[in-house]
Amino acid sequence: MSRFSLNQATIKYAGLEEAVRVTVDAGIESIGLWREPVAEFGLAASAALVRDAGLRVSSLCRGGFFTGPDLAASLDDNRRAIEETAALGAPTLVLVAGGLPDGSRDLVGARERVRDAIGALEGDARAAGISLAIEALHPMYVTDRAVVSTLGQALDIAEQFDARAVGVVVDTFHVFWDPQVLDQIARAGAGGRIASYQVCDWTMPIAADPLLSRGYPGDGHIDFESLTEAVVAAGYTGDIECEIFNQEIWDAPYPEVVRLSHAAFERVVAPHLGLQ
Amino acid sequence: MSRFSLNQATIKYAGLEEAVRVTVDAGIESIGLWREPVAEFGLAASAALVRDAGLRVSSLCRGGFFTGPDLAASLDDNRRAIEETAALGAPTLVLVAGGLPDGSRDLVGARERVRDAIGALEGDARAAGISLAIEALHPMYVTDRAVVSTLGQALDIAEQFDARAVGVVVDTFHVFWDPQVLDQIARAGAGGRIASYQVCDWTMPIAADPLLSRGYPGDGHIDFESLTEAVVAAGYTGDIECEIFNQEIWDAPYPEVVRLSHAAFERVVAPHLGLQ
Repeated sequence: MSRFSLNQATIKYAGLEEAVRVTVDAGIESIGLWREPVAEFGLAASAALVRDAGLRVSSLCRGGFFTGPDLAASLDDNRRAIEETAALGAPTLVLVAGGLPDGSRDLVGARERVRDAIGALEGDARAAGISLAIEALHPMYVTDRAVVSTLGQALDIAEQFDARAVGVVVDTFHVFWDPQVLDQIARAGAGGRIASYQVCDWTMPIAADPLLSRGYPGDGHIDFESLTEAVVAAGYTGDIECEIFNQEIWDAPYPEVVRLSHAAFERVVAPHLGLQ
Repeated sequence: MSRFSLNQATIKYAGLEEAVRVTVDAGIESIGLWREPVAEFGLAASAALVRDAGLRVSSLCRGGFFTGPDLAASLDDNRRAIEETAALGAPTLVLVAGGLPDGSRDLVGARERVRDAIGALEGDARAAGISLAIEALHPMYVTDRAVVSTLGQALDIAEQFDARAVGVVVDTFHVFWDPQVLDQIARAGAGGRIASYQVCDWTMPIAADPLLSRGYPGDGHIDFESLTEAVVAAGYTGDIECEIFNQEIWDAPYPEVVRLSHAAFERVVAPHLGLQ
């Protein structure tokens, strides 16, 4: 069994059927799905499609965005996302916190709101048998996308709740810079909190749209050896998603992108996974 | 006495004489200098110029860059910068750590090198009667400019040395996102480690050149109230520099930029300084 999973966002413009087909054709056993293409194909049909294809679903991306003007609507939407995650047979719903509310400079207040929202969803996640995975995003996204900026901060929130229901994502792109990252990965592992490990590289210069500033593992500046070894030592045994936002990669042929993602994983991540 | 200081980089294209003139003309009492324009005007002449103008020199920018191929040359250059700082009558030399060496992914090793280099310079700083101020830069600069990314990490290094010789910079742009920032400011104050407080704002979207993504205080997303109150509570009583890297601001008339910087400071920073 290979632990490599293709996150669907890496071939963003493929519809669900095509994404599943190129994944299976490449001999890959696992896929990370996104809500929008699943909704487009239909939830039940999507669940049947991946099941019939023999794929594991490593996660569903994504819920969260708790800091907007209508918290009740956000919670409703997240409850639907939890149901979708369970229906797809995925263990994990990835949560992106949301940025500062319009016109606000109150990071502390926004962070409290994120914690409270996750508290409101904990029971739903437990009932559905899935994990909410809080994803720390790189601090350059703190105002517009995620007021949760470090793994330590994500754990400070997660640890207030049941470990079966609330964990964290370790995404190399977002956390590699953090001087505390190895300690925080160990902390996450000790608490059984690593719900997802995602890999892509940090390339320079930062793209004009900083959201798209990612590369194949090995093409940038991230030390996948120390991070992967820390995740392994922390006891994470799940699938490992390659999730790349990059315009040039999005514009390339899907089979080529899948092949290059998988090869990059085998070259710079897999050698550090120890005996499988 | 006003604590506002104009960092010369805010009017980057002005020579030293012009920078001093517009600063004095605006009724400002303090200036933060950069090495390049000082070198261009001559060190002794620069010292005489600011002294005759009646200006305090709040800091000299900047030393550091310890992670390149020639550490000995870097240390020599930093020793010259320490002498320049003393000659200009400035209390503080700002240090930017440097990024990853070419082709390296070893952040841990680069950080050890930064600590060792500062250790090698501690005695020189003490002998010269100036402080080395380690500046944590925003994590988006971790690979190309500064492997020191958080105030806590800067303090972890500074605290290994004499507090008279090694402190830290609190720069709002670089640290505002950090969930630990208020605690770390308090820690810095308790140890007598705040050597500089610099203010500018985080504006969105991030500029195409991320180095230039700064704005006047109040024009972006930073909460200057909580940060300034924390710096005051931490016991910092020195000058407060407004340092803005922004192409549009660099292209504007210098007196207007100085006026807008000062007005922004009076509007969003000064009200939180307490009784002076």
